[in-house]
Amino acid sequence: MTESLKTLSEHRCFGGTQTFHEHDAREIGLPMRFSVFLPPQAAEGPVPAVLYLAGLTCNEETFMVKAGAQRLAAELGLALVAPDTSPRGAHAPGESDSWDFGVGAGFYLDATEAPWSAHWRMESYLIDELLPLLGTGFPIDPQRIGVFGHSMGGHGALTLALRHPGVFASLSALAPICAPTRCPWGEKAFTGYLGADRSRWLEHDATVLMENQPVAPFPSGILIDQGLADKFLLEQLHPHLFEAACQAIGQPLALRRHDGYDHGYYFIQSFMADHLAHHAAVLKG
Amino acid sequence: MTESLKTLSEHRCFGGTQTFHEHDAREIGLPMRFSVFLPPQAAEGPVPAVLYLAGLTCNEETFMVKAGAQRLAAELGLALVAPDTSPRGAHAPGESDSWDFGVGAGFYLDATEAPWSAHWRMESYLIDELLPLLGTGFPIDPQRIGVFGHSMGGHGALTLALRHPGVFASLSALAPICAPTRCPWGEKAFTGYLGADRSRWLEHDATVLMENQPVAPFPSGILIDQGLADKFLLEQLHPHLFEAACQAIGQPLALRRHDGYDHGYYFIQSFMADHLAHHAAVLKG
Repeated sequence: MTESLKTLSEHRCFGGTQTFHEHDAREIGLPMRFSVFLPPQAAEGPVPAVLYLAGLTCNEETFMVKAGAQRLAAELGLALVAPDTSPRGAHAPGESDSWDFGVGAGFYLDATEAPWSAHWRMESYLIDELLPLLGTGFPIDPQRIGVFGHSMGGHGALTLALRHPGVFASLSALAPICAPTRCPWGEKAFTGYLGADRSRWLEHDATVLMENQPVAPFPSGILIDQGLADKFLLEQLHPHLFEAACQAIGQPLALRRHDGYDHGYYFIQSFMADHLAHHAAVLKG
Repeated sequence: MTESLKTLSEHRCFGGTQTFHEHDAREIGLPMRFSVFLPPQAAEGPVPAVLYLAGLTCNEETFMVKAGAQRLAAELGLALVAPDTSPRGAHAPGESDSWDFGVGAGFYLDATEAPWSAHWRMESYLIDELLPLLGTGFPIDPQRIGVFGHSMGGHGALTLALRHPGVFASLSALAPICAPTRCPWGEKAFTGYLGADRSRWLEHDATVLMENQPVAPFPSGILIDQGLADKFLLEQLHPHLFEAACQAIGQPLALRRHDGYDHGYYFIQSFMADHLAHHAAVLKG
């Protein structure tokens, strides 16, 4: 698996190393790119890492360029890992027709419907291929991995953390899509990737997944930040539904609503320090 | 002058406000864009500001997206201002043929040669138009302005600060072009904008300008950071020449050379805190 791992570029950053990689991804059947920031502490041995899942139209570079996370990660001794948001180069019919479906919009699940099922297997790619690769190809401790994400990537963080117990030790999200079976982005994506049978969508809806937890899966708490000037809040994101699901099963949740903040990376960077501190408290605790 | 000032977008960021603007620039004869970050302290009255001049191919957005400066500026109570790097939309013949001349490459001077002299007047635009506009259109104290920049923008910061005594109270640069009359980027730009007579280039060369100072113009010191893995260092940047000029006239200079760092924004963000602290110490001191 590591044989095909290539380093596309490398930059020194805050005493650590920012790298961009490509590998032949078995689960996707195409080359996939991802980025890694290693803090200075990684020179002395494996460090914990936080996986960041980006939103619609983003790629493996977005977070590393725009989020201002490396300074804090260098201080805390956390690695940062950001995958791409979908397969690229599949040439599936219509893959680039929409900004919210297809290329740049993988929704962090395995598609079951043709033609998407051939390559759009982001869940298996992340869980079964990229995470193991981090432990073998990098000075990253695979037992101490957290996950967070933004918007579609917040959906990815919440659902993957709930669907794969024990894989991620810490969880947070920024303006996540919290109930994709009940919003236009989710309905479009799930219809395309999973088919018209809505009962099969439920296992990829963070709110439904949380409602069905027998006990709180993250007893140390989940952190979610949401801007109140976010133009997608009312129609697409529905954090109040996830909040109610957490309350119902006793999952501690800090859902912070921020006046005036919108959906973009100026919002994300404003609260990045709190997210990395949230993960560090668990991963290094 | 403020009549044509438009706000293109506004984002809450670290308790302050990130905005993007456009105005009909009298000195350029075309609309120009710039960005402003106002820290939370600006709600209580005018704050000091630091003008950031970006490098080749950049625009008014690059610094605000990539430099990770807003968090520190919010803490320090500094406004940040980033103009574009050249006129756009002039339709001058060949203006987009090169990445290092024309559009995105104004070199922060007033061109004297046709066709560039019609619109490529970045020095007059910045000093006589944008800086006054900051004091009238924003809660910025025009008596407390610092300047810094990267690469071509480092050249801009050093030369404008030396050519306009008293306008900028503090000065720093990241990987600046320090001796443009002696490097390919500068020779190409100065030939095009200023003509073949090299004697007219000297007043836009930071090293020459410093050599000709009767006394140290910035007695509190100038800060320059330079990565030693910067692929442009040996051919284009020549910080050692500026260093020698500072030594010759007694100008305090902290020229810090950093192993492993390259020319990009991963380098820039790594040392951003030190630059903003350098400016804050003078502007708030």
